[in-house]
Amino acid sequence: MTADNGVGQRQTGGKYVEPGGEFNRDQNYITTRITADGRDGYPVEPGRYRLVVSRACPWANRLIIVRRLLGLEDVLSMGVTGPTHDARSWTFDLDPGGRDPVLGIERIQEAYFARYPDYPRGITVPAIVDVPTGQVVTNDYAQMSLDLSTEWTAYQRPGAPDLYPEHLRAEIDEVNAVVFRDVNNGVYKCGFAGSQEAYDKAYHRLFDRLDWLSDRLAGQRYLVGDTITEADVRLFTTLVRFDPVYHGHFKCNRQKLSEMPVLWAYARDLFTTPGFGDTVDFDHVKRHYYEVHRDINPTGVVPLGPDLSNWLTPHDREALGGRPFGNGTPPPPPSPTEQVNPAHTPLH
Amino acid sequence: MTADNGVGQRQTGGKYVEPGGEFNRDQNYITTRITADGRDGYPVEPGRYRLVVSRACPWANRLIIVRRLLGLEDVLSMGVTGPTHDARSWTFDLDPGGRDPVLGIERIQEAYFARYPDYPRGITVPAIVDVPTGQVVTNDYAQMSLDLSTEWTAYQRPGAPDLYPEHLRAEIDEVNAVVFRDVNNGVYKCGFAGSQEAYDKAYHRLFDRLDWLSDRLAGQRYLVGDTITEADVRLFTTLVRFDPVYHGHFKCNRQKLSEMPVLWAYARDLFTTPGFGDTVDFDHVKRHYYEVHRDINPTGVVPLGPDLSNWLTPHDREALGGRPFGNGTPPPPPSPTEQVNPAHTPLH
Repeated sequence: MTADNGVGQRQTGGKYVEPGGEFNRDQNYITTRITADGRDGYPVEPGRYRLVVSRACPWANRLIIVRRLLGLEDVLSMGVTGPTHDARSWTFDLDPGGRDPVLGIERIQEAYFARYPDYPRGITVPAIVDVPTGQVVTNDYAQMSLDLSTEWTAYQRPGAPDLYPEHLRAEIDEVNAVVFRDVNNGVYKCGFAGSQEAYDKAYHRLFDRLDWLSDRLAGQRYLVGDTITEADVRLFTTLVRFDPVYHGHFKCNRQKLSEMPVLWAYARDLFTTPGFGDTVDFDHVKRHYYEVHRDINPTGVVPLGPDLSNWLTPHDREALGGRPFGNGTPPPPPSPTEQVNPAHTPLH
Repeated sequence: MTADNGVGQRQTGGKYVEPGGEFNRDQNYITTRITADGRDGYPVEPGRYRLVVSRACPWANRLIIVRRLLGLEDVLSMGVTGPTHDARSWTFDLDPGGRDPVLGIERIQEAYFARYPDYPRGITVPAIVDVPTGQVVTNDYAQMSLDLSTEWTAYQRPGAPDLYPEHLRAEIDEVNAVVFRDVNNGVYKCGFAGSQEAYDKAYHRLFDRLDWLSDRLAGQRYLVGDTITEADVRLFTTLVRFDPVYHGHFKCNRQKLSEMPVLWAYARDLFTTPGFGDTVDFDHVKRHYYEVHRDINPTGVVPLGPDLSNWLTPHDREALGGRPFGNGTPPPPPSPTEQVNPAHTPLH
């Protein structure tokens, strides 16, 4: 998202840090759901909706991964904004003419205002837009990815994995809750801390939780059960940004990810699993954080490091067993129109 | 120093970055020399002078090391400022009453003004002050450390090493020149770059030079010859600050020092050599950079990382041979009054 940051604050001038205090994420989203039974007025329907993302954003990255793992590309199209944004919103500056070719808009903000002319909250990605009306349906990223798993089942590809198996939901929810608090959002609490005390607290919670995750993952290949689940997707999108951004920009620097052996092997295992690493654009990731957060990086200079070639070193996690896709199969490679620029990833 | 930074700029409000351009260090110093023959009016004389340093500063750190290696503690006393400073100058805020006990002043600026009432340049450490008059003699840090080796010979301890042997001076000078340009000052050129272009250029020069140094040090224990020289002292004070500060704060992030095996082993070898690691106060180092450079770290939050315990892992450089102190001997431990706070170093 972009609520990625402090959203409300962002709209009034690119401020993310609360001087003297801690960073608090605005967690109020548009909670309308797209469901199989259409009870909120938006039934699951092939071709009707468009998922809008930025590849820079960890919250949007979750949706890109889940959509790919489930093979929903042909029924739910995807619009991709550029990595940076101005005070008004994410823009479609990567598209010819600066407009999304399906929605015909320059900024995702327009889809928010089409539904709520006075929409007062953060203009965030990921968002799903109803193409016929041009109105945003939801930006509730956490529910959105679960709904792709549970409500869009009729349109998933043959061999799609079950990312949210019923018998594991309680455990997945529990892991997700602490990973969100201490890791996904925890890195922002380090980076946007407005006082030493707020930073120190967030840093210890983050690294204590990473130690806990290392212990958990030392003997099992995935976070919950022996297959990839929603919990792995959510942890992955933070881990993949750790060394390029969070370590330096957000001062999450007890170690690099590459210095935490278990988590580093786990992250590389997922990175080289179809549907994960092939969604990650490191150039967009770095440019987003370093160019947008001018209140913690006033010069806007984007670091040239780190060297990313280490992502492809052997991880040896297969020895732990596990069945990545359970009874399913890996997704095919991304379609040519959805491939990450080869210059922006070590995969090419 | 403090010229450490942009000195002139610092005095007008804590600005180190030149927007749109590159960082250029003011390299005009007070070049008066203290010599054996006293030709500049300042003869070498035990007890007459006071070396003023900050343990945070890499340029001052050189002098602390050289003075210790040569055993000049009893003939050249040392005043230590706090790690941070305001727009006017480094202050003696570590001392009782906030005054240096020998010079009786609160700020090193006073010693500069005692000699030149309108002194227009940066108020920097290291500086040597003439105690009877309270006037600064010199802040020309590069010449200053060579003079401790070559002009103060009559007062060096028995067993003092020759850090600037005559037959190696040409080679030492040559190495020092490129190490200064690309490494010692190069990290500042990365961190204070006012444009992406200036940063990119400095980054490549820095890491190309570190690769060159790695090659040079792969098969020999020290930079020039088979003993410790001035060249090692100058490289060490930058390397020891690399992971705690330059990697994140200055965006020198292709790798951490700890990810460059030859330089990392070389740095640990020196760190555990008497006279090197026992002069380093990591707390002062981190606080200085992160608290003072508000134009690249507006919040002033100081990172809690990195974990520094890895400095004491075996380096195995003894296998390369070499005679650290040549025909001399290691210095004894620092006197109790000059020990680094045990909480600020992994050595304790």
